[in-house]
Amino acid sequence: MKVSREKWEKNFSEWFDWVLREAEIYDYGRYPVKGMGIWMPYGFKIRQNVIQLIRKLLDETGHEEVLFPILIPEDLLKKETEHIKGFENEVFWVTKGGSEDLDIKLALRPTSETAITYMESFWIKSYKQLPKKYYQIVSVFRYETKATRPMIRLREVSTFKEAHTIHETYEDAARQVEEAVSIYKKFFDELGIPYVISQRPDWDKFAGAEYTIAFDTIMPDSRVLQIGTVHHLGQHFTKAFDFKIQKKDGSLDYPHQTSYGISDRVIAVLIAINGDDHGPVLHPSIAPIKVVVIPIPGKDEDITNKVFNYAKEIGEILNAQGITTVVDDNKEITPGEKYYIWELKGVPLRIEIGPRELNENVVLIKRRDTFEGKTVPKDKVVEEVKNLLEIMKADLKARASQLLRDRIKRAEDLEEAKKLLEAKAGIVEVPWCGDNSCGLKLEEITNARVLGIPLDEKVDVSNMKCVVCKRQAKYMLRLAKTY
Amino acid sequence: MKVSREKWEKNFSEWFDWVLREAEIYDYGRYPVKGMGIWMPYGFKIRQNVIQLIRKLLDETGHEEVLFPILIPEDLLKKETEHIKGFENEVFWVTKGGSEDLDIKLALRPTSETAITYMESFWIKSYKQLPKKYYQIVSVFRYETKATRPMIRLREVSTFKEAHTIHETYEDAARQVEEAVSIYKKFFDELGIPYVISQRPDWDKFAGAEYTIAFDTIMPDSRVLQIGTVHHLGQHFTKAFDFKIQKKDGSLDYPHQTSYGISDRVIAVLIAINGDDHGPVLHPSIAPIKVVVIPIPGKDEDITNKVFNYAKEIGEILNAQGITTVVDDNKEITPGEKYYIWELKGVPLRIEIGPRELNENVVLIKRRDTFEGKTVPKDKVVEEVKNLLEIMKADLKARASQLLRDRIKRAEDLEEAKKLLEAKAGIVEVPWCGDNSCGLKLEEITNARVLGIPLDEKVDVSNMKCVVCKRQAKYMLRLAKTY
Repeated sequence: MKVSREKWEKNFSEWFDWVLREAEIYDYGRYPVKGMGIWMPYGFKIRQNVIQLIRKLLDETGHEEVLFPILIPEDLLKKETEHIKGFENEVFWVTKGGSEDLDIKLALRPTSETAITYMESFWIKSYKQLPKKYYQIVSVFRYETKATRPMIRLREVSTFKEAHTIHETYEDAARQVEEAVSIYKKFFDELGIPYVISQRPDWDKFAGAEYTIAFDTIMPDSRVLQIGTVHHLGQHFTKAFDFKIQKKDGSLDYPHQTSYGISDRVIAVLIAINGDDHGPVLHPSIAPIKVVVIPIPGKDEDITNKVFNYAKEIGEILNAQGITTVVDDNKEITPGEKYYIWELKGVPLRIEIGPRELNENVVLIKRRDTFEGKTVPKDKVVEEVKNLLEIMKADLKARASQLLRDRIKRAEDLEEAKKLLEAKAGIVEVPWCGDNSCGLKLEEITNARVLGIPLDEKVDVSNMKCVVCKRQAKYMLRLAKTY
Repeated sequence: MKVSREKWEKNFSEWFDWVLREAEIYDYGRYPVKGMGIWMPYGFKIRQNVIQLIRKLLDETGHEEVLFPILIPEDLLKKETEHIKGFENEVFWVTKGGSEDLDIKLALRPTSETAITYMESFWIKSYKQLPKKYYQIVSVFRYETKATRPMIRLREVSTFKEAHTIHETYEDAARQVEEAVSIYKKFFDELGIPYVISQRPDWDKFAGAEYTIAFDTIMPDSRVLQIGTVHHLGQHFTKAFDFKIQKKDGSLDYPHQTSYGISDRVIAVLIAINGDDHGPVLHPSIAPIKVVVIPIPGKDEDITNKVFNYAKEIGEILNAQGITTVVDDNKEITPGEKYYIWELKGVPLRIEIGPRELNENVVLIKRRDTFEGKTVPKDKVVEEVKNLLEIMKADLKARASQLLRDRIKRAEDLEEAKKLLEAKAGIVEVPWCGDNSCGLKLEEITNARVLGIPLDEKVDVSNMKCVVCKRQAKYMLRLAKTY
């Protein structure tokens, strides 16, 4: 069977909305507040599996989970001047309790640097307590004026993992930025999500940061999606809160901080990148159901019952091994209808069992990504399922990585860069002198966005000229049409 | 060692605030929004363990976890008239996005019946899809005008587990109420939390319910705390949303619903009920750390190092068996200081290891609840720790249950009831004719609250008279000073 990817590639946006609703992952567009959706049971389980993985990676590197209030008073949020400038037009404000006006407006947190720094100033007095690495997984809110999109641009981002760390020195915080980058690499690698890592340009760093490092991926429509950011906050927030600690040398000084976050977008990518016209192919690491068993009725009731019992047995064998398996024993719909549903839900493996399989004591296993089938003896089913899930992980990752690499282009002059971007080429790298003015001009001319300087590849630019000013280039700069 | 419970019993409120902050469970009173606190890492882990247990009990009874938006538009919240009457003075309202006024006010959800019913009307068309049992674990908000208290009366209730179910008939929903009661019984039993179950009087049922069943417990200060409620919602919400389904007989009708919830209060009770002047005794089911190992230095460095290595080895043995154990190998503080900290954190078992234990190849295990010590050979440590944790569970539960039973009194006349309540007796049961007017008078006269009719005991009231009107009694009625 040839895998068709027409709808997935050409009408990605419609495909994505269709999958989220039809596969009962995320109900979007019907809830009567713009930019807010509902995680339905199946989607919630995908989300839980993703959360479980990031929790594991954070816990094993000494991060501690906490939970802060959703509301931040206006004066607290406004303490750090650059920070509030970056957010003030995007904040939802609570102004009333019952019929009373509140004394002070309360923000629905857009992010928690201010709340956390304020509380750290009570908790942390000395370098001996450092480093401290906190994180929380919460909803954050943005009063987006741009068009909203399910999981990708929301007014309630309901799966925001924000980490906040605090250190004695600038260098310690810089090392923490590196640790965060390496944690996110492991996270995306495990999920088979390809990415590029760039240092965001000065004009696009986080509001209140020294510098920002970002993970970006490319969606099926060739637009780039930011999927993770890591910020060195320096002393911006600790100074704003006049929060000093005792240092090793006995002096008092403002500690240094970092913060880093990922969101629902990771889940959007997991649904989007491995897809075809039948729906998504869920990565085995996060698929809530790894295998669906579909019994195919025989020519009489007796055979049919035997087939259904055999299917049930296979389900029990797999579940007993911790491989979450569903046996779809609904007798009111046809196997074909079942294929449709479970393909739409992206279950990695399907086991078909009919009279022939029953007779021969075998099962037919089909991969959701390639639709390749393989007949294996019953006593090999566990081994083969485990094996195929591992192969699928590797294949999905390789395929997605290849797609990403194919969409990174180089251009040494402006016209070419513009043309590539207009042709939806993906990410375009151009030589750059390093001046902000040239970078901003680039964005204007190409009507694209600067992602920043590549941190995951070394390019020799000694023979290259800045595409804008023609002076000696210092860096490659990544540009893309973004979400 | 005699266990002192002076502070715990006589100054419970101070004791509780002290424990939450000093044991780094929940930071309350410093965050600059009234009624909102921070779950710190240690408290967060206790919370996670409680959440894990309720998830398990709900998942295994066919409940599906979902996640709805935090914001509910005013018109949606106001659909059910009684419901909004019950909540309208307690709702936080978002009225602004950035500097713009919103078209319609958005409520921070006080509870989610309206949002969920609205979405169910899209999802559910036929009796064939029923029953459906959804739940979510989220923050809910109440603009409380009463005095707030950490975990007990909050403006942001950050651990609200709300279940919402939907059924074809009234009777199906009534059976679901019974299932919910049995789930909560299992939950509280596993946690060793004693309770009484009462049907709330008409004037105190949930806003929009047919009837409400509540779980109450008694805190160390003898005041009663509601820790769980189960509501039969009938067709109140489905009618308000004009939401009909196809029934088995082919007709269209409004489905019936239930909802039931528990909150942070469960965690408050877990910290409160098993306590003494050293702090709480965490129930082994939810203690993030089951065992702390404390090495006691010897007369020289060599012995001390050997003791510390032995302590480390014991920690490894226990952790390898899945018994979360911390070895406190800090050399800058004394064993006495360590005892203070870990008692305050309520760790169920402490293992003391000194030169004598090293020599004899034994360990000394002390229970946090009784401070009883037991010396056991090293090769029996796992077995003995497991054994002691089970014994502690049983003992804590028995002790807490006894405390509850000792605080349930009967009174056959009004004066006696009043006296008992003023003397902080706990729960007082009185015979009642069943008329609301007599019930309300009772509350007024005794300055206490009616908990409702006991559902967990049968009392023959045929020879009793209502304490207010002196007519024949129909029920016993529970009264208490409540939180």
